[in-house]
Amino acid sequence: MKDTLLSHIEYPKDLRKLSPGQLPYLAQELRDFVINIVASKEGHLGASLGVIELTIALHYAFDTPNDILVWDVGHQAYPHKILTGRKKLFHTNRQLGGISGFPKRNESEYDTFGVGHSSTSISATLGMAIASKLKGDTTKQHIAVIGDASIASGMAFEGLNHAGVTDANMLIILNDNSIGIDPSVGALKEYLTKAKVGYKPKTDNIIEALNFEYFGPIDGHDLPKLLEILEKLKVIKGPKLLHIITTKGKGLKQAEENQVTYHAPGKFDAVTGDLLPKKNTGQPPKFQDVFGHTILELARENKKIIGITPAMPTGSSLKYMMEEMPDRAFDVGIAEQHAVTLAAGMATQGLVPFCTIYSTFLQRAYDQLIHDVALQNLPVIFCIDRAGLVGADGATHHGVFDIAYLNCIPNMIVAAPADEIELRNLLYTASLGLGHPIAIRYPRGRGKIVDWKIAMNKIPIGKGRCLIQQTSKTAILSTGTIGNNVITALTSIEEKVSHYHFCFIKPLDGELLKEISQKYKTIITIEDGTIKGGFGSVILDFANQHNFNNKIITLGIPDQFIHHGTTQELQEICGISVEEITNTILKTIR
Amino acid sequence: MKDTLLSHIEYPKDLRKLSPGQLPYLAQELRDFVINIVASKEGHLGASLGVIELTIALHYAFDTPNDILVWDVGHQAYPHKILTGRKKLFHTNRQLGGISGFPKRNESEYDTFGVGHSSTSISATLGMAIASKLKGDTTKQHIAVIGDASIASGMAFEGLNHAGVTDANMLIILNDNSIGIDPSVGALKEYLTKAKVGYKPKTDNIIEALNFEYFGPIDGHDLPKLLEILEKLKVIKGPKLLHIITTKGKGLKQAEENQVTYHAPGKFDAVTGDLLPKKNTGQPPKFQDVFGHTILELARENKKIIGITPAMPTGSSLKYMMEEMPDRAFDVGIAEQHAVTLAAGMATQGLVPFCTIYSTFLQRAYDQLIHDVALQNLPVIFCIDRAGLVGADGATHHGVFDIAYLNCIPNMIVAAPADEIELRNLLYTASLGLGHPIAIRYPRGRGKIVDWKIAMNKIPIGKGRCLIQQTSKTAILSTGTIGNNVITALTSIEEKVSHYHFCFIKPLDGELLKEISQKYKTIITIEDGTIKGGFGSVILDFANQHNFNNKIITLGIPDQFIHHGTTQELQEICGISVEEITNTILKTIR
Repeated sequence: MKDTLLSHIEYPKDLRKLSPGQLPYLAQELRDFVINIVASKEGHLGASLGVIELTIALHYAFDTPNDILVWDVGHQAYPHKILTGRKKLFHTNRQLGGISGFPKRNESEYDTFGVGHSSTSISATLGMAIASKLKGDTTKQHIAVIGDASIASGMAFEGLNHAGVTDANMLIILNDNSIGIDPSVGALKEYLTKAKVGYKPKTDNIIEALNFEYFGPIDGHDLPKLLEILEKLKVIKGPKLLHIITTKGKGLKQAEENQVTYHAPGKFDAVTGDLLPKKNTGQPPKFQDVFGHTILELARENKKIIGITPAMPTGSSLKYMMEEMPDRAFDVGIAEQHAVTLAAGMATQGLVPFCTIYSTFLQRAYDQLIHDVALQNLPVIFCIDRAGLVGADGATHHGVFDIAYLNCIPNMIVAAPADEIELRNLLYTASLGLGHPIAIRYPRGRGKIVDWKIAMNKIPIGKGRCLIQQTSKTAILSTGTIGNNVITALTSIEEKVSHYHFCFIKPLDGELLKEISQKYKTIITIEDGTIKGGFGSVILDFANQHNFNNKIITLGIPDQFIHHGTTQELQEICGISVEEITNTILKTIR
Repeated sequence: MKDTLLSHIEYPKDLRKLSPGQLPYLAQELRDFVINIVASKEGHLGASLGVIELTIALHYAFDTPNDILVWDVGHQAYPHKILTGRKKLFHTNRQLGGISGFPKRNESEYDTFGVGHSSTSISATLGMAIASKLKGDTTKQHIAVIGDASIASGMAFEGLNHAGVTDANMLIILNDNSIGIDPSVGALKEYLTKAKVGYKPKTDNIIEALNFEYFGPIDGHDLPKLLEILEKLKVIKGPKLLHIITTKGKGLKQAEENQVTYHAPGKFDAVTGDLLPKKNTGQPPKFQDVFGHTILELARENKKIIGITPAMPTGSSLKYMMEEMPDRAFDVGIAEQHAVTLAAGMATQGLVPFCTIYSTFLQRAYDQLIHDVALQNLPVIFCIDRAGLVGADGATHHGVFDIAYLNCIPNMIVAAPADEIELRNLLYTASLGLGHPIAIRYPRGRGKIVDWKIAMNKIPIGKGRCLIQQTSKTAILSTGTIGNNVITALTSIEEKVSHYHFCFIKPLDGELLKEISQKYKTIITIEDGTIKGGFGSVILDFANQHNFNNKIITLGIPDQFIHHGTTQELQEICGISVEEITNTILKTIR
């Protein structure tokens, strides 16, 4: 490493040896460091580039880790990681055994709170600030950095609402760049947009109304200004908010201009900023695109169809419908609770709402799903993207609990298609009206069928099907796309094994199960979800109820949090990769 | 029935035949009607008395059910029910087979959206308003009535934030009485409190900042004023909010003066308003009081203990600690998400947070429980009140999904004590530090042990115990207080049956289970929770993994929503009453 300012910095104590005048140079080096590594190693880019100056200023002005710093969402924490002991490990970011792409408590004492989902920082920081107060520590600082998209979520409001009536020593830094992963939406965003550097949004503004002292807005890339105000804020007790205005992707032209693309751009040229060409032609589609294009096709024919996403128009590919039918496709912001009950309200009026939410984020709307949708048996269609293991995003983002948490809810139909065409047919079938809510789960990433855009067919609800029938003692029962691993495994072995696909986890195909029970001695279930209460448990329940005598082996995600790595590596760890499935089959039948 | 105004009103169309001048007389009759029936039949009182005038005004001014009216939470909807076809059924309120204590879609077309949990009305109404707009209906009115405690919840903010950027034709009526079930809290409440009739809180207030037209505050008991403004609001398009100020319990002196007690006062004298004496002496305690008094005892000894409740200080009995240690016990308002992550933040600093939440409301914080607590393995202690069937509150309030939705989460300890003393010991044991989060579930209502306040003992985590050991072929395995039904059942039969109590659903006592498997032919599991993914499923999973050969019968709440009735009636329906358990045992062993 060249003899740069950054080369001498391992921890904030090293940073604090620099003079304030050196910090803008360090900022440039840090920005280059992030760009260079993310260009080849991939990861989240834009958000980190937007907080380079803020990160330096915070660690310079405050006594971290004694002073507590919480990064909301956390995908902007790369510069923080680099300045807090992980510069040399940063090239391992998001890799198996490497550092996490998000702050993680057991990785560093500087990572005070694990994040990944948005809008948790205010609550967590308030909890810490109250703890300090109870311990009699009145000088410790507690800082939450939260974006304008995240602060508009209900959970953040709950935190503000409580913090405003405490005298907790906390500082919220509102990092306002008018964008989350997609551009921010909502009334609060419109309100904040009225603020410009030096001009706050009204006197007695929303923040002040909630009892916070309000500072700013200031330019979040102006290091001297940042340092000046942070020094000032240090000595002000009680809850306060500093509004800074930043540019996502700051310092890399393409990232500033194409903020959505450069949120997590994949590999790019570190010098020019150009994306490296991807081999997209002839590739099977991403599942999100199967959803995104199919809902648009269906919506063209059926005027009752509505699309709803909480802040994931690009990630879920609802953007196609939003572009063509802006009055019928809604990005409601980071508001999963609202998204689900909004859909319920629409369903009461005969509309056909498709609510697309990542599996891990649907956890945010669990009560609404039970209380507003399922209890009233409203036919909302949940399109659960990123179900199963998601790879490099890791433990905060895996969608592995959904089968378990959905199966226990009465009235729900729970489905996991085997491939793109079945997903498409399910979307079509659901759009015809099922008299029940349905959850359709599908994974992150690409499928396997290039020509998937074929005519759609209605699928019988609750029916499984045999994919490979053999005269064998063993049958494999899979649900969802993990069945493709089974198909591959079975082609690699000589032994005969049958394979059944259960598109529906609920209602279960009892007839088929009884037939399977009689035909085979051993049943192996496989799913890309937790085995605790998942598909395997459902089969066991049924088997017990109907006095099956089969040996049943259940494969799935074990009862532990799975961290980051490639999806294939993680499948290996969980025993559901092609190789591990092959081993299990061979061990069973030999 | 006397020849009153009310006697001629079955539906709003009858109401609309009255002259405006007659309405205050009707209000008095309606108020008396509610008081008279609730005095003897029990139910929610104060909230309904506070909206008598509003209810009349809304049904008079608007064309319900064509115009849509959604009552947030819904326990204030008694006058609404009485004026919309259910006057003659009102005495069946909350009884098995009678009308529900909450609006319910399949009960009446006037009940446009089922409610029970708070803060859903804005999202639901917005969904309906958007639906009308898409259908080209520009005259239909969509009205949400929401209290000041409910509007401070994150979900309501999400709804406001979205509605403010639509041109949806919706009216939010903020029914501001400074109280939910307990007095409202939080910064928004303090802000609203600045408003008095005729004086709105500041120009450009919070509501206006979110793009709503703001009207009021007006006196919500002033019928002519209400009618005047509703007529005016009818013709104003887009999102608008009317702030009304009311008195909870209006018109019954005691209910106005003791608003918490008279929220749902039980039986009282309809003339004097006095509560009828309850036989409290010599009774076993309520489980909430075991929690409330025990945490206070523990907190006196251990300064690290913190109590947190989202808006249920009275219902959870955290109020005792709040009174004695206001700096260490927090009512955070209707903010379950915040409550859980606040606890997580505190736990990172070495505090010992007890977060008490009703089972049905913990659904609101499911993601926070997974992502902020369990993933970080923070030792937050969840005290899950009202677990299992809760009786008259019905489907929206039963706490029957918690075992299933908790069991699938790694790192969690899930426990269900058999009685008051075990609950107490569990609280004590958890306070010592377990290195994991723990969920302790206990039911609504009274236990069975009068002398429960005895010295506390540490309980070994993950251990079950034998309650009755017999030389028998059948063993019953129960978890939680439903085991008392088993105990009673077993005393009534001659046949010998063993009974084991599993205080811990997770981790499971595998050693004991293996022993049971060898000793008995048949195992019957019983729980006060859904059988889908519940305790029975857990036992089946273990049995399958360890090749048990027992016949296993699982009893619990079936896979359907259970409505209202007494807890005993509902247990009967679910097959877990003493009688039903007895029948199952006899059928099994004979």
